[in-house]
Amino acid sequence: MSGLLRSVPAVAQAPAAGDPLPSWNDGAAKQAILDFVRVTTDQASQSYVRPEERIATFDQDGTLWVEHPMYSQVVYCLDRVPTVVAKRPELKNAEPFKTVLSGNRAAMAKLSMRDLEKILAATLTGMTVDEFNAEAMKWLETARHPRWQRPYTELVYQPMLEVLRHLRDNGYRTYIVTGGGQDFVRIYSQQVYGIPPEQVVGTAGATKFGYGKDGKPFLTKEPKLLLNDNDAGKPEGIHLMIGRRPRAAFGNSNGDREMLEWTAWGMVRGSRCWSCMMTPRASTPTVRLRGCRTPGSVPSLPRSMAKRRRMDGR
Amino acid sequence: MSGLLRSVPAVAQAPAAGDPLPSWNDGAAKQAILDFVRVTTDQASQSYVRPEERIATFDQDGTLWVEHPMYSQVVYCLDRVPTVVAKRPELKNAEPFKTVLSGNRAAMAKLSMRDLEKILAATLTGMTVDEFNAEAMKWLETARHPRWQRPYTELVYQPMLEVLRHLRDNGYRTYIVTGGGQDFVRIYSQQVYGIPPEQVVGTAGATKFGYGKDGKPFLTKEPKLLLNDNDAGKPEGIHLMIGRRPRAAFGNSNGDREMLEWTAWGMVRGSRCWSCMMTPRASTPTVRLRGCRTPGSVPSLPRSMAKRRRMDGR
Repeated sequence: MSGLLRSVPAVAQAPAAGDPLPSWNDGAAKQAILDFVRVTTDQASQSYVRPEERIATFDQDGTLWVEHPMYSQVVYCLDRVPTVVAKRPELKNAEPFKTVLSGNRAAMAKLSMRDLEKILAATLTGMTVDEFNAEAMKWLETARHPRWQRPYTELVYQPMLEVLRHLRDNGYRTYIVTGGGQDFVRIYSQQVYGIPPEQVVGTAGATKFGYGKDGKPFLTKEPKLLLNDNDAGKPEGIHLMIGRRPRAAFGNSNGDREMLEWTAWGMVRGSRCWSCMMTPRASTPTVRLRGCRTPGSVPSLPRSMAKRRRMDGR
Repeated sequence: MSGLLRSVPAVAQAPAAGDPLPSWNDGAAKQAILDFVRVTTDQASQSYVRPEERIATFDQDGTLWVEHPMYSQVVYCLDRVPTVVAKRPELKNAEPFKTVLSGNRAAMAKLSMRDLEKILAATLTGMTVDEFNAEAMKWLETARHPRWQRPYTELVYQPMLEVLRHLRDNGYRTYIVTGGGQDFVRIYSQQVYGIPPEQVVGTAGATKFGYGKDGKPFLTKEPKLLLNDNDAGKPEGIHLMIGRRPRAAFGNSNGDREMLEWTAWGMVRGSRCWSCMMTPRASTPTVRLRGCRTPGSVPSLPRSMAKRRRMDGR
């Protein structure tokens, strides 16, 4: 693991004595989280959840770390284009690679979803898993956010780190369930969020097993999508990778809606589930959570987080 | 959880004091397992493995439970055919369903792989995840092995339960990595093996998220294969579902070969990995493990297990 990533202090910070969520404003949202943890871990409570069932899932982009001006992993892919073109010169004058190489940001902003898919396939597949890990790690160490001039792995939300920690301190296993690439997020999830790679569910492609000349086996990342972990893909991915329904879920966009609904409808025998759609701006359409019967299920973002969010450059 | 599955005593049995593997004969195989656990958990050892890296993977059929006269899940699928045909009468006179309904065992034994795939698709997909779980649970409670007249969940190998326990007692997380259906095995893995559903990697199909008339979301099992968790699919599935390379792996057939190779080649910085291909019969071709440099890497099956195996009816 890199020195830079090792230096990320986020998850190592101890909570303030007595208050597990010191960055949160006092209010309904904070109280709802504290109440949820309390009643689901109190054996005398009707809402008690056995430790093995304590699963909490978190979206990443915009929920745990910066997502503006664009998804960090998309920046990685765009940054990788020159290296890919150097190895495959036939792409130099082909779109969308030509536009990316031009550096013309206005033109790049107009790239279509189909263009973006071509860029993702060219930059995220075709290499071994070990090669990908080394390349992505190097980028994470050296890349800087265009506005804040800091590594992306430092642009994480302190209030949410506190929620992660508070849940784990109470026996919850915390999972990331992200539209981002599963292999990408697994590289830094332990150091940045305290979440081990096996607890990262993300958009995932196939790999292909093969042998080197020395007989050593390796896995190659293939341009074949297995799981698009957005929208309906989130509960589908949770079923595939975890096989249990979360007791709490956190997201910030319509892409998290189905995960939040899947979680909120999971109540059985009076036990409590909890879905949190954070709405940092009044203009963000609030997703109505069908079946979410607990108070505080759609809390607004605490002020301290809203402040953090403005760091995104919005 | 059913009363029957709750009654399975396997994982609840405490090991004999002083010997974590009391069902194993003294010998090289037993000693290799004990040595592996000792040196990988001793901080003073060059082979020390940090707790978060302690992953051990186990094939299921023939390694942890009975696989003869046929895979238990195939028996489940064949037993389900009458119910499926009752709902879809058009299948009654169509092959291979007609042959299965005939009960003619000689004819059923001649069904092709393509026939079997049709049966698996018809009996394992097209229902919600909840419906599938209820159906499979009911079968596990009532079905009996044709020779031993006991539930399949009782036909597990005591020596391997001891290995699972010994590894867990020393900080290893034990995973099942099976060609069997992931959803099927997850139903009983906790009760039978002490392995939670999120640590079961198996052959997996897609699910489709949808809403009932009341707005309640559900997942339907689709006839679309995402992961064939056999052969090369095992290391591919380990990468997809776990994202770490195991430090120990156990299997009993050629379908486990790639998983064992992937594990055996994982040695870095002098740390020790271990792959165990159990060879219960002299006629079983022994897989040569490329790169497996540890002693005892292909131990023969202990006698107590060979005895258990004869219960399979071979």
